Amino acid sequence: MRHDVLESLVIENSSKIVLLVLDGVGDLPHPSHDGRTPLEAARTPHLDRIAPAAALGRILPVAPGVTPGSGPGHLALFGYDPIETKVGRGVLEALGAGFALERGDVAARANFCTLDERGVVTDRRAGRISSEACARLTGRLERELAPIEGVRVLLKPGKGHRFVAVLRGPGLAGDVSDADPHREGEAIPAARPLSKEPAAAKAARVVNALVKRMVEILSDERPANGALVRGLSSRPELCGYRERFKLRAAAVASYPMYRGVAELAGMDVLPTGETIGEAFATARARWGDFDFFFVHWKATDMAGEDGDFDAKVVAVEQADVALPALLDLKPDVLCVTGDHSTPVLVRGHSWHPVPLLVHGRWAGADGATRFHERNARAGSLGTLASQDLMALLMANAGRLDKYGA
Amino acid sequence: MRHDVLESLVIENSSKIVLLVLDGVGDLPHPSHDGRTPLEAARTPHLDRIAPAAALGRILPVAPGVTPGSGPGHLALFGYDPIETKVGRGVLEALGAGFALERGDVAARANFCTLDERGVVTDRRAGRISSEACARLTGRLERELAPIEGVRVLLKPGKGHRFVAVLRGPGLAGDVSDADPHREGEAIPAARPLSKEPAAAKAARVVNALVKRMVEILSDERPANGALVRGLSSRPELCGYRERFKLRAAAVASYPMYRGVAELAGMDVLPTGETIGEAFATARARWGDFDFFFVHWKATDMAGEDGDFDAKVVAVEQADVALPALLDLKPDVLCVTGDHSTPVLVRGHSWHPVPLLVHGRWAGADGATRFHERNARAGSLGTLASQDLMALLMANAGRLDKYGA
Repeated sequence: MRHDVLESLVIENSSKIVLLVLDGVGDLPHPSHDGRTPLEAARTPHLDRIAPAAALGRILPVAPGVTPGSGPGHLALFGYDPIETKVGRGVLEALGAGFALERGDVAARANFCTLDERGVVTDRRAGRISSEACARLTGRLERELAPIEGVRVLLKPGKGHRFVAVLRGPGLAGDVSDADPHREGEAIPAARPLSKEPAAAKAARVVNALVKRMVEILSDERPANGALVRGLSSRPELCGYRERFKLRAAAVASYPMYRGVAELAGMDVLPTGETIGEAFATARARWGDFDFFFVHWKATDMAGEDGDFDAKVVAVEQADVALPALLDLKPDVLCVTGDHSTPVLVRGHSWHPVPLLVHGRWAGADGATRFHERNARAGSLGTLASQDLMALLMANAGRLDKYGA
Repeated sequence: MRHDVLESLVIENSSKIVLLVLDGVGDLPHPSHDGRTPLEAARTPHLDRIAPAAALGRILPVAPGVTPGSGPGHLALFGYDPIETKVGRGVLEALGAGFALERGDVAARANFCTLDERGVVTDRRAGRISSEACARLTGRLERELAPIEGVRVLLKPGKGHRFVAVLRGPGLAGDVSDADPHREGEAIPAARPLSKEPAAAKAARVVNALVKRMVEILSDERPANGALVRGLSSRPELCGYRERFKLRAAAVASYPMYRGVAELAGMDVLPTGETIGEAFATARARWGDFDFFFVHWKATDMAGEDGDFDAKVVAVEQADVALPALLDLKPDVLCVTGDHSTPVLVRGHSWHPVPLLVHGRWAGADGATRFHERNARAGSLGTLASQDLMALLMANAGRLDKYGA
């Protein structure tokens, strides 16, 4: 649906919408588990209680056959076109590292490398140094790096040789090529502006000065005596929930990446704990302050990534056990789905459609006994694009006017 | 899915994909056969064996209600947008006649006609002369026609009054109007260039000289004393499988049209026999040389065109009997589907979605007992556009990277 048309139909009321994302919940029948999926195998008495009165269906995050990363998966759930909405790799990485990005920030992925005496990259991963070594080195760099053309450089260490760099200062743009040869045996290339904007030229100058300065500071370190910078991107300015949907939206998520993407979409990111029970308690505590709650549960995805069927069953059951606290709030519309599938057999994100449940007074009662992939594919909602889900939830909340007379 | 985005995700591995096209396989419940379709009525023990472990669904070749010709039907299966990808009528006809079109060739449909003494077309089909007469006349024309502006004219006789003409020489383009009044009682109009390209102007001059010269040569023939030329088109330069999907692709098809369209898509067209058993033997013989095999079986479509339910059942059973030879090759991904439906009741191509089966380790096991239209419409793959099928097969083969982080 065209965004401008959809948004012209938005009306306000006092309804409450909850979007409960069980990350990576969609799965495949598992041959070692009687051909069942984790949703089928899990004991979910509370989901079972609402399933018959709900409408089921499936969502397709990006396109047939396309496996979404967490960024595109959530942007689509939040009503953005996941292809047209550009959130750069550096920005996603910075959000995942817990950076609170500000307007105008440029973020990048970076990693330590080994250079020979002529400046040629001999190891792009600096011998895969430990995360502890990485933290020590980024700490040293942060202490010794002075601002460049008025731009501060903020660093956060990641796993092994990886870290994140954020450039914060006036007049920067992220359309800049990588300061990374992407292979060994070559010198670090200069970053180049990819547009004619002065802000891109400035960002490229800053990146090149930064790389030069990091090599100077690290000159007495071994094996990490240099650093590469790639995936430069600006914090995007997305039109947010308040403007698009006239919703006061809250995000309840414990992982930085999801908190970050929700913040880009204009949600208020609430402090919360690690468990799904704590997430529901957070929603309850702030129930009066918001119209829309995005609640994120990561454990389903992690179990899928690990290829651990039993752990995925447990993750589903943990959500189900906690569910009464959410149901007691009596949201007008409750949606349970995922940002993508993470099948145990695949041990990673996948392209398979994601089961969807929508519960509300006008959702329709499919009469399904349980919420799982098999019932979802026969559900009354059919298979829709993830980016169209928000319209469906708004409609179920009575928040979309008729189109035309 | 946008092609540029999809193609940016392609990765290479050693997997094998087989796309088995049972031409026109989709059908409708037949009232004289207990409301069954040919797929339901056929004995298919080998398909039945893989069906439970496969994912089922349907593909829509062009758009709801739109009946595809064989060209668009296959172009969509091969991952091209069947609306945006222009393959002219003349080119399709030439491919169907077995012409090996070269880069720069312009092809046309042609037919013999009857002209009166003033050059007015009195019969656009020359009294529907026999195919034998047509072959004699095209032979005579080929012997007597000299090159025109350095352009050779190649002819192949078709059924009855029809033949195919290919113009081969430097500097030609196919955007030229028909040298055909499209009704009787008018003279043959001059072909006109439809663009400002010099190559179109040259092609129009060549066509007009050709028509004039054919009338001169045929002046002593009755009733075929003239010829009309239409559907002029250049051999298109499509981005092929190797560039788009990084696949070494082979086509195993006995009919010229399908061999030709596969060649346009950048496949190596392998010599093979008439039967589906010979097709599978060809795939086996060249199994190590390719990553992707398109195998085409025509008999299902022919039976549908003839409105012959029993013949269509036999055609399906012939494919099934031969199937073990293909299954023994253990393709990583096996897809069985059609380019369009050809229902016995319709006696021709139709707009109905086509049943789809995808078998592979990550395809999902729908648990369906058999592969047919009724089960396909309840399958986990849902209904997707034919042009998105390649992405799904690539994903199942582990050949598509994640989109976004």
